[in-house]
Amino acid sequence: MKSHRKELWFEVPQRRAYLNITPQVEAALRESGIKEGLCLVNAMHISASVFINDDERGLHGDFEKWLERLAPEKPHSQYRHNETGEDNADAHLKRSIMGRETVVAVTAGRLDFGPWEQIFYAEFDGLRKKRVLVKIIGD
Amino acid sequence: MKSHRKELWFEVPQRRAYLNITPQVEAALRESGIKEGLCLVNAMHISASVFINDDERGLHGDFEKWLERLAPEKPHSQYRHNETGEDNADAHLKRSIMGRETVVAVTAGRLDFGPWEQIFYAEFDGLRKKRVLVKIIGD
Amino acid sequence: MKSHRKELWFEVPQRRAYLNITPQVEAALRESGIKEGLCLVNAMHISASVFINDDERGLHGDFEKWLERLAPEKPHSQYRHNETGEDNADAHLKRSIMGRETVVAVTAGRLDFGPWEQIFYAEFDGLRKKRVLVKIIGD
Repeated sequence: MKSHRKELWFEVPQRRAYLNITPQVEAALRESGIKEGLCLVNAMHISASVFINDDERGLHGDFEKWLERLAPEKPHSQYRHNETGEDNADAHLKRSIMGRETVVAVTAGRLDFGPWEQIFYAEFDGLRKKRVLVKIIGD
Repeated sequence: MKSHRKELWFEVPQRRAYLNITPQVEAALRESGIKEGLCLVNAMHISASVFINDDERGLHGDFEKWLERLAPEKPHSQYRHNETGEDNADAHLKRSIMGRETVVAVTAGRLDFGPWEQIFYAEFDGLRKKRVLVKIIGD
Repeated sequence: MKSHRKELWFEVPQRRAYLNITPQVEAALRESGIKEGLCLVNAMHISASVFINDDERGLHGDFEKWLERLAPEKPHSQYRHNETGEDNADAHLKRSIMGRETVVAVTAGRLDFGPWEQIFYAEFDGLRKKRVLVKIIGD
């Protein structure tokens, strides 16, 4: 069994954003030389997500509005977590909906995707350097 | 390390439905001959989910009502994604709550389940052919 | 390829709670002797979750309040699932938001975590014995 590990670094210049990281994950897979296996992609920070959905800007706008409705950022004082001096409790909740990680099948050396699947890094508390972990195992 | 790949195809005759696909996943596992490993089951489409929960019709009715409250289908015009000509933005949101995939342990050649765990395909934008991917790795 | 399986048992003395189970998962990893691979941690019951987030008590209070807003326990009669004699439909919904499982990379014999990642068992229908499964595969 082979394994390969790669960190992807991001510094998003605003609080929230959706980045298509599929090309970076594909590059990590090529480096690994793995043909059959599983590829884990996870946010290493607890106020960010990795998920698979459509690369369509309108949909990302819908995500932004919807997540603000389900887990509003403000007022910051509505969350006990923010009493610790943080202001990012909403980011922990938004990330809980969108998920920490995805696991993708690797088949014949490729990410084994349906027609529109793309991997996104969702930043909910940006303006600083944060990481995504890619771990691939297989043969 | 062995690996096995299988696609499951569905054409749900209405917009939304919950299908218990545990028997098909178990069949794929038997075909694989894998005794110890991990089994990934994921929707290959971004308006559908794979998740594990109870096979109880009342609960599925509760999911339907609850997801419509959190991410209502109508009016279609409330979503920017639908300006592209689609009407399925709500399906992308519902799928985000219920999840794209599950990973199940394989032990002694069986899906290593608790007492009530069953795997479901949740269709949120049906009336056409769509796929689930099963990928099993192990020995 | 090696694999290791371990069940963790819990009996939470109230309906809902968040338990940091990272030490128990790390112990299972040490027992496995696996240095490179993937570690699956999943609730074996469908009214509980395993997820990764911050070990901060205020945040757990925010989760409790937020999940009660999105999927309120009472009145029990609002859910069809409860017509079966259960009163835990809300627990199935809360678990759907927080997730059944997490997959963690194993690197150099350690859980490959970012700075604040910790693994939690979330109980949404306690007062009885329930289980978490840890399954680790790799070399």
